Amino acid sequence: MPRLVKKFGGTSVADVQRIKAVAARVKRAVDAGHEVAVVVSAMAGATNQLVDYANAVNVLHDSSEHDVVVASGEQVTAGLLAMALQDLGVPARSWLGWQIPIRTDTAHSRARILDIDASDLDRAMHEGTVPVIAGFQGIAADGRVTTLGRGGSDTTAVALAAALKADRCDIYTDVDGVYTSDPRVVSRARKLRQITFEEMLEMASVGAKVLQTRSVELAMNHGVRVQVLSSFEDVPGTMVVSEEEIVEQALVSGVTYSRDEAKITLLRVADKPGVAAGIFGPLAEANINVDMIVQNISAEGDTTDLTFTVAKADLARAVALLEECRSSIGYGNVLSDANVVKVSVIGVGMRSHAGIAAQMFRALADKGINIQVITTSEIKVSVLIDEAYAELAARTLHTTYGLDAA
Amino acid sequence: MPRLVKKFGGTSVADVQRIKAVAARVKRAVDAGHEVAVVVSAMAGATNQLVDYANAVNVLHDSSEHDVVVASGEQVTAGLLAMALQDLGVPARSWLGWQIPIRTDTAHSRARILDIDASDLDRAMHEGTVPVIAGFQGIAADGRVTTLGRGGSDTTAVALAAALKADRCDIYTDVDGVYTSDPRVVSRARKLRQITFEEMLEMASVGAKVLQTRSVELAMNHGVRVQVLSSFEDVPGTMVVSEEEIVEQALVSGVTYSRDEAKITLLRVADKPGVAAGIFGPLAEANINVDMIVQNISAEGDTTDLTFTVAKADLARAVALLEECRSSIGYGNVLSDANVVKVSVIGVGMRSHAGIAAQMFRALADKGINIQVITTSEIKVSVLIDEAYAELAARTLHTTYGLDAA
Repeated sequence: MPRLVKKFGGTSVADVQRIKAVAARVKRAVDAGHEVAVVVSAMAGATNQLVDYANAVNVLHDSSEHDVVVASGEQVTAGLLAMALQDLGVPARSWLGWQIPIRTDTAHSRARILDIDASDLDRAMHEGTVPVIAGFQGIAADGRVTTLGRGGSDTTAVALAAALKADRCDIYTDVDGVYTSDPRVVSRARKLRQITFEEMLEMASVGAKVLQTRSVELAMNHGVRVQVLSSFEDVPGTMVVSEEEIVEQALVSGVTYSRDEAKITLLRVADKPGVAAGIFGPLAEANINVDMIVQNISAEGDTTDLTFTVAKADLARAVALLEECRSSIGYGNVLSDANVVKVSVIGVGMRSHAGIAAQMFRALADKGINIQVITTSEIKVSVLIDEAYAELAARTLHTTYGLDAA
Repeated sequence: MPRLVKKFGGTSVADVQRIKAVAARVKRAVDAGHEVAVVVSAMAGATNQLVDYANAVNVLHDSSEHDVVVASGEQVTAGLLAMALQDLGVPARSWLGWQIPIRTDTAHSRARILDIDASDLDRAMHEGTVPVIAGFQGIAADGRVTTLGRGGSDTTAVALAAALKADRCDIYTDVDGVYTSDPRVVSRARKLRQITFEEMLEMASVGAKVLQTRSVELAMNHGVRVQVLSSFEDVPGTMVVSEEEIVEQALVSGVTYSRDEAKITLLRVADKPGVAAGIFGPLAEANINVDMIVQNISAEGDTTDLTFTVAKADLARAVALLEECRSSIGYGNVLSDANVVKVSVIGVGMRSHAGIAAQMFRALADKGINIQVITTSEIKVSVLIDEAYAELAARTLHTTYGLDAA
């Protein structure tokens, strides 16, 4: 009997009517002969309300108490969905994180799952009961409630699918799958039938917020087949699978862009050992993440120019920090630019095909778009360009790599 | 170091500001040198919201899932109050029912506490941490969440006070104590400084909804001194104590009345063995509680008249049921009257003083109030009278027994 884990996000269980619709959808899967376990998020808005309470009570709140408060949201949905399933004649029972148990480390509010004892759930499924599991939560070794961070219910679902040896993990959300690009910008973007774990990870890291990154890592490590699909329509979504499963591999699977970038350039940095540590050490200590880094050899010989990007929200803080450290670092001048965008092309096909990057640079040059910074990974090429060209670049590259819908 | 358990009800923790006020009050007790544990209810309105969700999803809901849903309310308050205490520099930590654990039977939604392992709480208090316990909830032997019924947080507090060997259990509520009568009706009612457990039990059973009945039983059985006092004012409340502790015992401690009564009379019931079972059996099966019962010997010899009271909400159903069973019971006619009220005087002093009941009947007769039914217990006399005289009767008896405020 095929075994499925189905996860429903906050908008899918936003009110009583939607919870009933979810129950009906689960019943259809059960009636079709599947063994089903369900993972639920909190009702849309519930988590924000709870976080607001916590912030109002004590801004510097204890993260273990924060977890006690916010975990209650998923608890409510789990109980309600179990009732809704029973109402349709489907045997069902709720499980909270500590009841299973889903054991995590003690890093409250961003805990990692260490181990899941799925034996009770497994037994229930064998007996024809649908377990409804509160997502996002676990229990630490000291018996306290933990939560897994934003999007943590995705991770709960994938981890349970691995522990239950499920044939597939369906993630129901408010989009109906993973697209070749953002359909709001690239009108000819189309839904991908399949995408590899690696591509999905790169997509997530460059701004396509479909799945929590950790859930994709977990799926990749445990070989869990994941499907992303819509809660509101009954159409197939996008399968996230291992590379071997992809039959016709396109060279490029997606074009993404992120406006959340700002560029900083340090001019005439002394070209000597330890200077990079002198620059990036203070930034790391201030919790400022640095993304792209490029170092140019300066014409003057003994100095170099260094360019890197930070999140737009961190720009002012980063520049102030660098100016404070000017004498200790030793550089001539600092320039910054918030009007930039990072455009990326992603595809596992790059591994075997040279020339993808060159094709990208040529296509952008043909449109008169200047490239400011370039970084590459095994399956991704990213360029930083003037923000004004974001949409033009995305559409151009979408066409260049043959991704446009017919 | 005196050890206190303090319980705060839903109106006391209704919003963030009130939660902060509760934290400040707990801090004052800690600063005064007390070891304090706190029990909290859900924020006012939260439980009703959760119950509404459950009813909307599935009217015939599974009570174990109902408990999962509604127990989340107290979970939220416990976490928030722990944060609020920490914000004031008071070391604090939340505990949920299953974390302590508070073990109960499996009667979901009205579970009884079987056992509390207070060792973790005890250790925390010794170390100077204030435990904040989610009231109303426990864990059954099968590991599922249970709840203790309406007002169950009172019972949690008293049970914990017993387990922690606390010197006192303070129940903070929206009234500032137990009164000799309802101050909205009897303007000269006054707050009692002390009341015995037995009197408190009788008060609760006749409609003074200050404490959950079970919490009073538990306090009596374990000798827990309970104080009922206001969350909003800083004045002493009413101490609920054992009879031996009361120094000056009044004959009567309180006059209560309940409008939730309706009278049924069966005329010309065959006066033979088994007839009472024939009448009250079907009512019990239909879950209709019968309160006062009086049987009069009929003038005609072989038949009798039988009068009893039921809750007003059950009257129509009870009469319909009795008419269905007319031939099997065997009676002449059924009369009913919803315009009645039960007035009671309560006091442990009755045990040693005869004449309390006679004094009551005389006082009511002097005002021209006709008594329809009388029942008595060891420390209570109740009469059923025409509803129109409810306030007059309460005020008259309040004066008769010397309860009026100076």
